[in-house]
Amino acid sequence: MRKNYVLKGNICYCIESSRIEISDGAYLVCEDGKSAGIFPSLPEQYQDFPITDFGECLIIPGLVDLHTHAPQYAFRGLGMDMPLMEWLETHTFPEESKYGDMEYAKKAYQIFADTMKKGATTRACIFATIHSEGTDCLMSLMEETGLHTMVGRVNMDRNAPVNLCEPSPEQALADTEEWIIKSRTQYRNTEPILTPRFIPTCSDMLMEGLGMLQQKYHMPVQSHLSENDSEIAFVQELCPWSRCYGDAYDRFGLFGGADCRTVMAHCVHSGDDEIALMKKNGVFIAHCAQSNTNLMSGVAPVRRYLEEGIPMGLGSDVAGGCTTDMFRAMVDSIHASNLRYRLFDDSLKPLTPAEAFYLATKGGGAFFGQVGSFEPGYEMDALVLDDRNLPHPQELTTLERLERMIYLADERNIVHKYVAGRKLF
Amino acid sequence: MRKNYVLKGNICYCIESSRIEISDGAYLVCEDGKSAGIFPSLPEQYQDFPITDFGECLIIPGLVDLHTHAPQYAFRGLGMDMPLMEWLETHTFPEESKYGDMEYAKKAYQIFADTMKKGATTRACIFATIHSEGTDCLMSLMEETGLHTMVGRVNMDRNAPVNLCEPSPEQALADTEEWIIKSRTQYRNTEPILTPRFIPTCSDMLMEGLGMLQQKYHMPVQSHLSENDSEIAFVQELCPWSRCYGDAYDRFGLFGGADCRTVMAHCVHSGDDEIALMKKNGVFIAHCAQSNTNLMSGVAPVRRYLEEGIPMGLGSDVAGGCTTDMFRAMVDSIHASNLRYRLFDDSLKPLTPAEAFYLATKGGGAFFGQVGSFEPGYEMDALVLDDRNLPHPQELTTLERLERMIYLADERNIVHKYVAGRKLF
Repeated sequence: MRKNYVLKGNICYCIESSRIEISDGAYLVCEDGKSAGIFPSLPEQYQDFPITDFGECLIIPGLVDLHTHAPQYAFRGLGMDMPLMEWLETHTFPEESKYGDMEYAKKAYQIFADTMKKGATTRACIFATIHSEGTDCLMSLMEETGLHTMVGRVNMDRNAPVNLCEPSPEQALADTEEWIIKSRTQYRNTEPILTPRFIPTCSDMLMEGLGMLQQKYHMPVQSHLSENDSEIAFVQELCPWSRCYGDAYDRFGLFGGADCRTVMAHCVHSGDDEIALMKKNGVFIAHCAQSNTNLMSGVAPVRRYLEEGIPMGLGSDVAGGCTTDMFRAMVDSIHASNLRYRLFDDSLKPLTPAEAFYLATKGGGAFFGQVGSFEPGYEMDALVLDDRNLPHPQELTTLERLERMIYLADERNIVHKYVAGRKLF
Repeated sequence: MRKNYVLKGNICYCIESSRIEISDGAYLVCEDGKSAGIFPSLPEQYQDFPITDFGECLIIPGLVDLHTHAPQYAFRGLGMDMPLMEWLETHTFPEESKYGDMEYAKKAYQIFADTMKKGATTRACIFATIHSEGTDCLMSLMEETGLHTMVGRVNMDRNAPVNLCEPSPEQALADTEEWIIKSRTQYRNTEPILTPRFIPTCSDMLMEGLGMLQQKYHMPVQSHLSENDSEIAFVQELCPWSRCYGDAYDRFGLFGGADCRTVMAHCVHSGDDEIALMKKNGVFIAHCAQSNTNLMSGVAPVRRYLEEGIPMGLGSDVAGGCTTDMFRAMVDSIHASNLRYRLFDDSLKPLTPAEAFYLATKGGGAFFGQVGSFEPGYEMDALVLDDRNLPHPQELTTLERLERMIYLADERNIVHKYVAGRKLF
């Protein structure tokens, strides 16, 4: 597969969160699957690389979805009328319990994978269910898309319907280890990630064992944190020894730190202690604005997280969010920050479009390494956007066209997609 | 043109705001352009009407946009990073001043009209600019779409750039009367509506004259009300004699009441006096959730308006809103109400999907008469929706499919569109 080539077009990306870099009609060089840089004219040493000229199209980094649930895609856009704990019981758990049926799982996951393939997302952290076979099926299907993803077989052994509880911590850990061993070498683009659902559904014994598996296999970790007030109160009840919700993960060795790359979804109601711990441990935040709006959880203090330098990206959180579309996730994050600023706390300024774009690219991309930018050395994840379906009577700059895309693009605008140097379409 | 026919499909509409009526595989009879009712089997007297069977498609009332600005469509999705008064000066006024140039106006309005034609909207209240010729151009183009719309030549004679101020109240009124006389008989589907931009840009003398034109020609009225705190403070300064912003319109006879059908956009910060006055006068509210989010205006107390029985619909408010899509307007209204409830005032419960659907159909439709429902006597505005681009592994009820459409539909799902009995496509 060819990994040395040049893309020409109007190139937009972030180096830092405060601004978008624009290079009109420039050459983006891909060498061995990575960016060798952006050049106004093609340097001598790349003259032999094949060039594709995308004319007036925009070229942007692929978008990164730091948090989504594949088995919930089936009920996207449904049942968005209740808070978290009630919503889990009414909608989510009944649906997820179906994924022990492989026929159903395959049908449902195929729909999810097809959507992810044609959308703007190039990297994603994905929850499956407690079912090993179903999770394998999802991993195979994601592998076929060409996206680079981390997929988690979910762990839960309490406070859930019996058919969604693993039979015992011991069995859960044995099954999880078997799944890790099998899946970590099986795929090229698809990696297993440890996925305790959240503290309410995971016993201390299960969490302890997962902490040991994390150390043994150097696994990345994903879970949920401080999404909803009653969830947080429940965690305090379940783990009276913890200083905060995040501390409960930390005591089990599942909250960042050296050799434990961790992403936590939500962090809507994290207090000072928890924020300090996330910062100290380098825990990533997956900010899921639409989900937090749909389930009336609130709005995370994203401006504070940016200012504190906590690593952060955006999550679609399907089906708390109704769509996998990361353009929409950018706008939702701006909208939620606007209303948080206006209705709740005007000390935290709203997100700018540049900041939302940063979070959806380089911010979340960092969870995957050097991903989400076109700076030299970054993996070549790129989208070529054609915006001619949105005509306009006036001249627009490239930056204005990108801003319009943030607000108005959907998968129809994505004409080509590259992941880690490989062209998917 | 044929106005007697039958549409067969899964029919969804509102009688009241609290629930959605569903008739699966039913017959919706159109007689002389109006609904004759919905029937599980076709009654004898309609046996001669031609039937179109849309199979598993959904049939819903056309959507109503109670507030949008055609000349702002050019910069949709741009410059959403400042509050109202600054945004008007920076983005809106410079763009609107271009519409004295007929070449530009035609090009820009054609783009707007094309979008409106293929979208979900069947009725709309539209602002043009102060330019009579440009407004005529917009009215002609809207007439060609087949939509039923009210279009307003905007009045403003103060507190705006000189090229957007009419030269004097006298000239403004003479030009407006000329435009009314010309346009009120010229079109079949397109009606002029009196459009003082808002109190800050309209002198007392201009408002007095518009009040007289309203009486003389029985004109409907559209304007803006209580969108933003600094706007409201400015109105109090300009009209120190007024009890509230709405009272300022009322003193000029431009705020509802007998023979003065009025729609006011926003009403985010209306106080008790203003709400009582709207209720007494039957003033319609155009709730523009996305615009009020983008411009950080706040969130209108929609639950209170519903409970008080104030007539209300939704507005896209392009380009305070980034899209004319009224499906999106429904979701935005739910989202804004969720965050208002969660962050600001939990005494007002969030909107349900049924309520948002009601507002986008029958709620706003009432401004146009018997519009926005399929109850007998209602004008036949209908959309046929095909949702097969959103596959799902499980069975879904028609109500669930409609709920998904509210969250996920765009113009690709609209396969046929009828306005007042006429099939547009």
